[in-house]
Amino acid sequence: MIKLSRLSAEQIQKILDEAMDFSKGKISKAKDEIYVANLFFEDSTRTKLSFEVAEKKLGLHVVDFEVEKSSLNKGETLLDTIKTLEAIGIEVAVIRHSKTRFYDELKDAKLSIVNAGDGIGYHPTQAVLDALTIIQEFGNVDGLKVGIVGDVKHSRVANSTSGLLRRLGAKVHFSGPEFWFDEAMLINGTFHPMDELVKEVDALIMLRIQNERHQEKIKIKSDEYLKKYGLTKEREKKMKPNAIIMHPAPINRGVEIDDALVECDRSRIFKQMQNGVFARMAILKATLEERGYSFS
Amino acid sequence: MIKLSRLSAEQIQKILDEAMDFSKGKISKAKDEIYVANLFFEDSTRTKLSFEVAEKKLGLHVVDFEVEKSSLNKGETLLDTIKTLEAIGIEVAVIRHSKTRFYDELKDAKLSIVNAGDGIGYHPTQAVLDALTIIQEFGNVDGLKVGIVGDVKHSRVANSTSGLLRRLGAKVHFSGPEFWFDEAMLINGTFHPMDELVKEVDALIMLRIQNERHQEKIKIKSDEYLKKYGLTKEREKKMKPNAIIMHPAPINRGVEIDDALVECDRSRIFKQMQNGVFARMAILKATLEERGYSFS
Amino acid sequence: MIKLSRLSAEQIQKILDEAMDFSKGKISKAKDEIYVANLFFEDSTRTKLSFEVAEKKLGLHVVDFEVEKSSLNKGETLLDTIKTLEAIGIEVAVIRHSKTRFYDELKDAKLSIVNAGDGIGYHPTQAVLDALTIIQEFGNVDGLKVGIVGDVKHSRVANSTSGLLRRLGAKVHFSGPEFWFDEAMLINGTFHPMDELVKEVDALIMLRIQNERHQEKIKIKSDEYLKKYGLTKEREKKMKPNAIIMHPAPINRGVEIDDALVECDRSRIFKQMQNGVFARMAILKATLEERGYSFS
Repeated sequence: MIKLSRLSAEQIQKILDEAMDFSKGKISKAKDEIYVANLFFEDSTRTKLSFEVAEKKLGLHVVDFEVEKSSLNKGETLLDTIKTLEAIGIEVAVIRHSKTRFYDELKDAKLSIVNAGDGIGYHPTQAVLDALTIIQEFGNVDGLKVGIVGDVKHSRVANSTSGLLRRLGAKVHFSGPEFWFDEAMLINGTFHPMDELVKEVDALIMLRIQNERHQEKIKIKSDEYLKKYGLTKEREKKMKPNAIIMHPAPINRGVEIDDALVECDRSRIFKQMQNGVFARMAILKATLEERGYSFS
Repeated sequence: MIKLSRLSAEQIQKILDEAMDFSKGKISKAKDEIYVANLFFEDSTRTKLSFEVAEKKLGLHVVDFEVEKSSLNKGETLLDTIKTLEAIGIEVAVIRHSKTRFYDELKDAKLSIVNAGDGIGYHPTQAVLDALTIIQEFGNVDGLKVGIVGDVKHSRVANSTSGLLRRLGAKVHFSGPEFWFDEAMLINGTFHPMDELVKEVDALIMLRIQNERHQEKIKIKSDEYLKKYGLTKEREKKMKPNAIIMHPAPINRGVEIDDALVECDRSRIFKQMQNGVFARMAILKATLEERGYSFS
Repeated sequence: MIKLSRLSAEQIQKILDEAMDFSKGKISKAKDEIYVANLFFEDSTRTKLSFEVAEKKLGLHVVDFEVEKSSLNKGETLLDTIKTLEAIGIEVAVIRHSKTRFYDELKDAKLSIVNAGDGIGYHPTQAVLDALTIIQEFGNVDGLKVGIVGDVKHSRVANSTSGLLRRLGAKVHFSGPEFWFDEAMLINGTFHPMDELVKEVDALIMLRIQNERHQEKIKIKSDEYLKKYGLTKEREKKMKPNAIIMHPAPINRGVEIDDALVECDRSRIFKQMQNGVFARMAILKATLEERGYSFS
């Protein structure tokens, strides 16, 4: 499994360059007949479809793994499921799982795992697409100020993206409700009040409130959240002239961000979705090349 | 989105001719790599599979959109979902939705929408396959008498098919339970008692009782419905020698139509299903040609 | 539909040879555009994915039949569903169904049916993959002793595999809880206590307890079952030097078989899964050749 944190600077640069090439129309097809399965134990249309398009654009064969019908429900372990896929000829399993570090129990697997999001752990393909979106805008990441706002504590996006952007030379600042922060979250950046943050950053990443992950129900209304911590129209006006707005989606319109800003000039939110396909193509290709496969 | 009612007579003829060619074995493949998603918010095997086969026969790449796992369940609007599909590179979304005129809220979408049935609105691909089935039988539609029988009020099939057949020159007559008729339904045809209707028509289209759409439970038993309004063996004997029986399926055997008639000599019910693939190929091809794509 | 019991010895040999060739890397693609649907009315990841990979390796087009959304839920019969598939151009339907001999009601179907498991009836592709696994090990089946252990009464695997192995010349012995045996089960072999059986056999097939099929809840705990009827580490030590362990999977680790034995040197369990793809390729190819299609 590719772990961004273990890749060298050159390896990361290669993935980013490849993703950039794909965004410019480069076509690359596997020379062999390769089978891929997408195992999404957490619901997701966006990411799953994005992977599926990426896989098909690379000429891979996608098989339809139906999580809810799998033998996992007959008591089979995840490792046995993966070994079964291996046995029937699957080369890559793309996995999203609610369990943080689900991949720890898959060390004996011989097929390649691509992490499509693990609990509150990591989401490496999101990190690559975020970095790609910033590079398309500013040419590079080094020296930029990036704000990540919201439920940082429960966000694998915050984790992965902040880690990668820092390695690429960005200064990462956080904001959001104080009760979602703790010391551990601030390894990759510092905390700032929202009204200050918006003035300083080159890229502002608004996170989705992960209601499904909150153990205690937050007692705050949507409009109150927006006013206190979200991106209102007033705050947007204070942003630097070239600063951009990002969001991993799906968006809670009117909560994290004012409805009217989702498609404003600064917004790169739909651009990020486009880039998701290119980032995933680059990571899948790197994963398969590591296994000895080659591409046209 | 292609709306049959807004197409010129030539455009409609072109779609019917193309569908006829496909029914005779014509092969046509997209010259580009094109991605299509089928979004069926109402269950359907027949229509969904028919579209899937049509898409694959045209060489399109079908991605697996899982309605029940989509972010629509996280509160995302249909428009945001469609824009997401757009962003990840989908060119055509085939949509069936229980909401009549669901497409009104998708005006800002840039990808092409194909209506696979909207509430009690329209079902244009059904209209084309019905017309194709009649043309295969009689050479053309002009001057024919067509009967549409059953729950006309709740039927998008009745709506679309009667509209198209009238434009092609047919006289459309309706029959069925009086409580399902109102003035608005009779724009495209006139009402006749079933026992008279069967004697006069060239094509008799029996509709499925849309139990799922009835707001008040109908207090009528299956065998009673068949006897009063359905196609019994007695009524079938009174039909003109060359008259044909049609049904959009799935069939409630023994309700709309006597079990024994489903596969009788007059029945074109399974022929209609075959034609469904050809009609959908023609409409998908026309939709994509409108976007500038070409086919072999 | 191919019924192994009705095939000649030559036909069976041809399927086994073909499966062996596929296991050695032979590539074979359909020369025509052929559509296949997999209808799994009982949940199964392993077998369904195995069929899907087999189909795609043969160059077939797989359409996505969603059982739970099908018109069967609107009261349509299985035969009408199959005729619908036929009408929209599907050539082969791979069906798994909880109803034993479901195929009896499909005699009027013109498309080909492949039985992927019917109730407590048969599971022919499993029989072929089991035979293939044994042949890979011992060169042939003739003269070997094979033990099948467990819930023989409720097992279509026991039924199909024992029938095929006997035709190929093996002696089949059964073991397991006495209350799961009756006279009818013993047509293809004789009953032996587990402690004797393990010493004698060349291949030992441990069956999965089919909890979902038991009408009366069995009052026996997992560890007790293992000790009395399962393959413990002690029993494994008594096996002949070259004897192999097989299991159709999914495995209840620690019930039919000690956890530690699942991947021991004697185990061919994951090998069986690999062979499943090759066995299914051979059967699908034979089925389609019977319809007049040819392969490269």
